[in-house]
Amino acid sequence: MPLSKPTAPFASETGDPFLLTPGPLTTSRSVKAAMLHDWGSRDANFIAINKAVLAQLCEIANGGEDYVTVPVQGSGTFAVEAMLTSLVPPKGKVLVLVNGAYGLRAKRILDIAGRKTVVHQTAEDAPPDLKKVEAILKRTPSITHVFAVHCETTSGILNPVEEIGALAAQYGKGYLIDSMSAFGAVPLDARAVRADAITASSNKCIEGVPGLGFVICRRAALEASQGNATTLVLDLHDQWSNFEKTGQYRFTPPTHVIVALHQALQEFTTEGGVPGRGGRYRNNCRILLDGMAALGFKPLLAAELQAPIIVTFHMLDDPRFDFQRFYDGLKERGFVIYPGKLTVADSFRMGCIGRLGEREMHGALDAVRELLRVMGVSAPSTQAA
Amino acid sequence: MPLSKPTAPFASETGDPFLLTPGPLTTSRSVKAAMLHDWGSRDANFIAINKAVLAQLCEIANGGEDYVTVPVQGSGTFAVEAMLTSLVPPKGKVLVLVNGAYGLRAKRILDIAGRKTVVHQTAEDAPPDLKKVEAILKRTPSITHVFAVHCETTSGILNPVEEIGALAAQYGKGYLIDSMSAFGAVPLDARAVRADAITASSNKCIEGVPGLGFVICRRAALEASQGNATTLVLDLHDQWSNFEKTGQYRFTPPTHVIVALHQALQEFTTEGGVPGRGGRYRNNCRILLDGMAALGFKPLLAAELQAPIIVTFHMLDDPRFDFQRFYDGLKERGFVIYPGKLTVADSFRMGCIGRLGEREMHGALDAVRELLRVMGVSAPSTQAA
Repeated sequence: MPLSKPTAPFASETGDPFLLTPGPLTTSRSVKAAMLHDWGSRDANFIAINKAVLAQLCEIANGGEDYVTVPVQGSGTFAVEAMLTSLVPPKGKVLVLVNGAYGLRAKRILDIAGRKTVVHQTAEDAPPDLKKVEAILKRTPSITHVFAVHCETTSGILNPVEEIGALAAQYGKGYLIDSMSAFGAVPLDARAVRADAITASSNKCIEGVPGLGFVICRRAALEASQGNATTLVLDLHDQWSNFEKTGQYRFTPPTHVIVALHQALQEFTTEGGVPGRGGRYRNNCRILLDGMAALGFKPLLAAELQAPIIVTFHMLDDPRFDFQRFYDGLKERGFVIYPGKLTVADSFRMGCIGRLGEREMHGALDAVRELLRVMGVSAPSTQAA
Repeated sequence: MPLSKPTAPFASETGDPFLLTPGPLTTSRSVKAAMLHDWGSRDANFIAINKAVLAQLCEIANGGEDYVTVPVQGSGTFAVEAMLTSLVPPKGKVLVLVNGAYGLRAKRILDIAGRKTVVHQTAEDAPPDLKKVEAILKRTPSITHVFAVHCETTSGILNPVEEIGALAAQYGKGYLIDSMSAFGAVPLDARAVRADAITASSNKCIEGVPGLGFVICRRAALEASQGNATTLVLDLHDQWSNFEKTGQYRFTPPTHVIVALHQALQEFTTEGGVPGRGGRYRNNCRILLDGMAALGFKPLLAAELQAPIIVTFHMLDDPRFDFQRFYDGLKERGFVIYPGKLTVADSFRMGCIGRLGEREMHGALDAVRELLRVMGVSAPSTQAA
């Protein structure tokens, strides 16, 4: 039983549906247009662009001279694995703070690489318990590092990376942060949180296209990491050494992705950096939360835990609400949300990052409202509308 | 002392210099234009495109139902490391055939991963000695796999992958081929050479943009590889299992790169597949070799060993020939060659792959001729011209 045809399809400036997902995201036309050129990866022009990109990423984290950005070809998880297996020595032990899939993934990476772990796990809608974290650090001196996820994309929860960093510093532990979906939109000061490393990727809040991860490393931690890695391609020290020597990647970089990232960073600056980008996303998130609440959708997270990145909503408790029809209907109307339900709770997710603003968020809400009407779902303001 | 300004700059349809390198290469405008759209990586439309890409790559290797393509985000070396560390078990031993940097890199990957190796090394301008290879296989039953580089980009030499495969099969060894710079231009039949796996990347003879490696695996070898990998992101079995289950990447794929690869593969088919693509490159290579010979440049390799991919030329034995001026002058005239001299012999390299044809090869030769004149180098036909 197909839904009625959309009356007013919504589309981006390139005719594509808007991506209300945790990434890859909708990017600007100019970011994509930067990929209309070919570059020699060992030529001076490309080397200069790449150097500027790495420097600006470090500045966003307020890294100063103490930090350096080491890029990793691939995806964000490639960078997370490079960070964990390069900076944690084979005999290290990591306290992994878990409240979602990305914390669990870090634990899995460490298990596979033979690094010992201690896990502090909380529910998907709960931040780590800092008292328990401190107790673990106090009673387990063999822990060498603490790992935390900044915004856990599983639920959209914002974890208290500053407070965790203070504890790691107090107990003399290295501190590794997966800031994948938050970097660039939520303030994070590498020196203030005393991070050994922060990882993120090209295709999240910086609004580039996917293909490059990066690790912003404290130089001292990076220098001390020589010989830790058990792979060639994910060895951050080796990757960094080669940049120091030649300015070049060891292995073919995704040149087009990097040139697009350079353009995305210029647009990031134009928007006012972290305050500007974060401000737009917070506004998007507020519109989404308010609008969906008016349509009867309840968010998983308490307001104070919600990062302005992606929102998890409970499914409507109405037998006429069919998620696959909802997903397909939104896509037909120009909005791709994250497909599939979550296993935790009976829920789905909508992102509010990427090249989206008020107009697009209201457009998405209009589409949701229309779909509920078509499905005959009686949500509060569907009836009012 | 700057060179005189070029009189007739040569440029591609996007205004960029032509890349006469081993990759990234000059790609068509339509391949780059395919990146002007954003795609949800877990949406059905993207999943269908990716599936078509993987199937076509397998067809190019004549893999049939016995083989399957497993993509690896990153670069070609990421795919080589994934192949070696996923398909060779921890207790495996690999006979590595080395005649250049890429053979040595495979040896290094295996060393880091703790896999035992036996190396048969020949000079950069010499293929492996098949009699010696057979003797090693005969006297070393503990060898489990043979690794060969199809076209060793260090020199441009074409290695005898069929004959090596016959020996590997005769002695019951697994066979792993790095066909990075040859795949799609030089015929390679996975079943005929009885390969366990063949690896290549998006940005070589298929003429896509960089960002994706892939491994065309014999299903039986892949199925037997579960548990071998010591990383998460480079685990081919895990990557493949997820495709079997969901059609999706485990970790964010470079969506734009993959959609560009899909376009590149359509253009590859239009050109007539391996015979068409390889034919154009052989013609490019012949023009380059003949033209450079007329200007006094001698190739490193004997004609029968030269793959139609990249040509290594000895430096001119003339004190007025300055390689940096040569490189810069060619770039000014619209041609980027591989920068830097080789350590082996006193030589440099020029590629003949990518979106280049007769016109571009003759244009490059005209630029070389003009530069020799400007530098006052007395080569045979510079005097004649």
